[in-house]
Amino acid sequence: MTAVQTQAVLEHIEATLDDARERWFSFLRIPSVSAQPEHAANCGAAATWVRDQLASMGFDAALHETPGHPIVLGHHPGPGGHAPHLLFYGHYDVQPAEPLELWTSPPFDPAMSQGPHSPRVVARGAVDDKGQVMMWLEALRAWHAVQGTLPVRVTALIEGEEEVSSPNLEPFLTAHRDALRADVAVISDTGMWDIDTPAITTRLRGIAYVQVVVHAARRDLHSGLFGGSALNPIGLLTRILADLVDPKGCVQLPGFYDGVADVPAALAAEWAALEFDEAAFLGGIGLAEPAGERGRSALERLWARPTADVNGIWGGYQGPGSKTVIAAEAGAKVSFRLVPGQDPAAVVEAFRAFVNARLPSDARAVIDVFGTAPGIEVASDSRFIQAARDVLADEYGRPAVLIGSGGSIPVVESMRRLLGVDSLLMGFGLDDDQVHSPNEKFEWRCFHKGLRSHARLLGKLAG
Amino acid sequence: MTAVQTQAVLEHIEATLDDARERWFSFLRIPSVSAQPEHAANCGAAATWVRDQLASMGFDAALHETPGHPIVLGHHPGPGGHAPHLLFYGHYDVQPAEPLELWTSPPFDPAMSQGPHSPRVVARGAVDDKGQVMMWLEALRAWHAVQGTLPVRVTALIEGEEEVSSPNLEPFLTAHRDALRADVAVISDTGMWDIDTPAITTRLRGIAYVQVVVHAARRDLHSGLFGGSALNPIGLLTRILADLVDPKGCVQLPGFYDGVADVPAALAAEWAALEFDEAAFLGGIGLAEPAGERGRSALERLWARPTADVNGIWGGYQGPGSKTVIAAEAGAKVSFRLVPGQDPAAVVEAFRAFVNARLPSDARAVIDVFGTAPGIEVASDSRFIQAARDVLADEYGRPAVLIGSGGSIPVVESMRRLLGVDSLLMGFGLDDDQVHSPNEKFEWRCFHKGLRSHARLLGKLAG
Repeated sequence: MTAVQTQAVLEHIEATLDDARERWFSFLRIPSVSAQPEHAANCGAAATWVRDQLASMGFDAALHETPGHPIVLGHHPGPGGHAPHLLFYGHYDVQPAEPLELWTSPPFDPAMSQGPHSPRVVARGAVDDKGQVMMWLEALRAWHAVQGTLPVRVTALIEGEEEVSSPNLEPFLTAHRDALRADVAVISDTGMWDIDTPAITTRLRGIAYVQVVVHAARRDLHSGLFGGSALNPIGLLTRILADLVDPKGCVQLPGFYDGVADVPAALAAEWAALEFDEAAFLGGIGLAEPAGERGRSALERLWARPTADVNGIWGGYQGPGSKTVIAAEAGAKVSFRLVPGQDPAAVVEAFRAFVNARLPSDARAVIDVFGTAPGIEVASDSRFIQAARDVLADEYGRPAVLIGSGGSIPVVESMRRLLGVDSLLMGFGLDDDQVHSPNEKFEWRCFHKGLRSHARLLGKLAG
Repeated sequence: MTAVQTQAVLEHIEATLDDARERWFSFLRIPSVSAQPEHAANCGAAATWVRDQLASMGFDAALHETPGHPIVLGHHPGPGGHAPHLLFYGHYDVQPAEPLELWTSPPFDPAMSQGPHSPRVVARGAVDDKGQVMMWLEALRAWHAVQGTLPVRVTALIEGEEEVSSPNLEPFLTAHRDALRADVAVISDTGMWDIDTPAITTRLRGIAYVQVVVHAARRDLHSGLFGGSALNPIGLLTRILADLVDPKGCVQLPGFYDGVADVPAALAAEWAALEFDEAAFLGGIGLAEPAGERGRSALERLWARPTADVNGIWGGYQGPGSKTVIAAEAGAKVSFRLVPGQDPAAVVEAFRAFVNARLPSDARAVIDVFGTAPGIEVASDSRFIQAARDVLADEYGRPAVLIGSGGSIPVVESMRRLLGVDSLLMGFGLDDDQVHSPNEKFEWRCFHKGLRSHARLLGKLAG
């Protein structure tokens, strides 16, 4: 496509912005809370709403029932032939809105309010993920309106269970592998560096999440009568967990750092140029001193280094006052954030061996694995990432930065593993969007420029 | 008193044993559960019952109201003059009987059943403490019946809140100091070495019970977004607690062992002669390897060495499955069992300093103290202990052994501190009496010989 055609689409977007906002608000008014059974019908309504939007732009779109909420799948042939084929992933479900009393306006009645960056839209799902999905749908709509078709082939995959860990997504990907063929997946569920600096996420940490329960005596004991003779499983558990990370912040599982590479120099230079203010980052949560690995920069520690954290611990008496008990068992939940090159299964096995090596003969440990996913790195020189960098630079007047994320987006790994498709993570959220919290918001400026960026990307890839 | 008089009393006991058992059963039928408000009237009824028993033997006895359940206080002048003055302590309240479905007979309908040692009485309170109190009351009754008076001066102090930590006892001791003057306190709430071997407890461990809560960030954090930068208070707490005890089982608080003396050689020899079977002791709870201080005998570790045990721990997510959270705080309950020579207040301060020395600048710890009591050692060569050893040897045909207890009996310390009175701990319970559990029992043989031993002791002290 020529720049002229893209320009016409952008003009159409500006001319119809009020309509786009009204459609977005209609979507936000559907309380499609996937976790709450009383909202099951609303999840179905949101799925139908998305399907109808796709159909109105010429998609062959349908709802697919699952054991949970339906998945919307749609295809548009675009110009056909050898045009690039995009697989767009998003989700129509939202987090519960509770506690309702903390909202300044009703969570499912979207409101425009003023903030430091001018207008913002306040509603549950404003950004996560209805707002991000809408930018993309509206970019498609504008192309369809101006050109009568789309400039690329598009498959849309919009699920309704992302907020409840997508239990039915992988079976769906496997069952519909052929229908989901694409050159790249576009996922709009990430953030910008700041409101003026667009970003593409190229690294996501993986995870290995385990639970360990240490058992000793066959019943709880009186600490007066048995203290000094009987093994205390809480004491044992604290010693095992204390060994996990050394005073320099290095995880002590044998082989844990096998395969962990330093960040490539070029990417490291980009991250350094971001001049991340860790003091402000920590200050926002009441901390002043960075924890974690010594000798690494803040962004390395957050995006490119693996960690071990105890996420929960329990044992013995937790009520008010005192009880002189030696517990029969004690447990903890431990998660390892992983980076590309680490094998999650090997980390789990190393943890198992690490625990067992520290058990005296009277103790036994039961270890459960609640989830594993490898760290992900997307080649930052792919044509899709280059195209996205170009259009973001055009829209914002400054280069997009390549960033990482300390968390995981499991669908990225699922699509790579099950479909063989890499992802382009171009998102427009901000850190202060109150995602999953009361008063979730999406800056109007982010929505507006994000919508324009998606429209530009479609034109760029067609060219 | 002459041995002839004691012999007459013992004969009277044998002749009236059925009546004694009926009185004991009447006492057991009163469900005086101090912890359960619906049994408040039954606690009052049990107090009245005890007062009436004392009054029937010539005591000047009365109920004293407290903010909780009443305390029974009674005085008998005995022969007056310079006769030894005994202060008997016991309690009429019992533990809750639940879970009721585990009882083989109703907990407040005492039943005789057969066990390996022949008949036993099964009921809540059978031994703790109604059975132990009744042995002593019946010994007094026999002396009163045969001699028309008691051979010594006696003050009886029977409270109704021992099972709920005696919140009103110390104020009562303080307020009635003059009325509680005595040469020795006799406390019948301890056990024998085994059913054929009588015992006098001369050592009790004390305690310092603390709670520590470590605070870091001002709210819970996402472990993906913050892991590698934010301090994890659970990790910190495990490192602090893991430092508390070294691999040889030695508590690492500076100064913790100050004042801790080895057991005197004579007592150590008595303990060694007991040939305590630690393998059987641990085997009963499913353990095989002794924990605790290396290089100490089992009974030293249980009775004469201080310990540190984590009694409870909590933090972060404890529910099913996984949650990727870095908690804002984590806490633990820690108790130190103390021995004579240790200052509980100094132990608490050492713990406070130990924790604070391990806190990074971003963490703070809140430490609460839930109770302190010093370890207690009774001079084993006192005339009262000697008298008790003599009468127990007469009754059982073998010497009584001097033992310790790993737990605390707070009233012993309270009476020493507030009244200046040392205790004689002569008890007749067995380890398998199911105290505080369903099917609590007292061996008939223990009751019978315990009653006779108390009668002998009264005669011996009068002499």
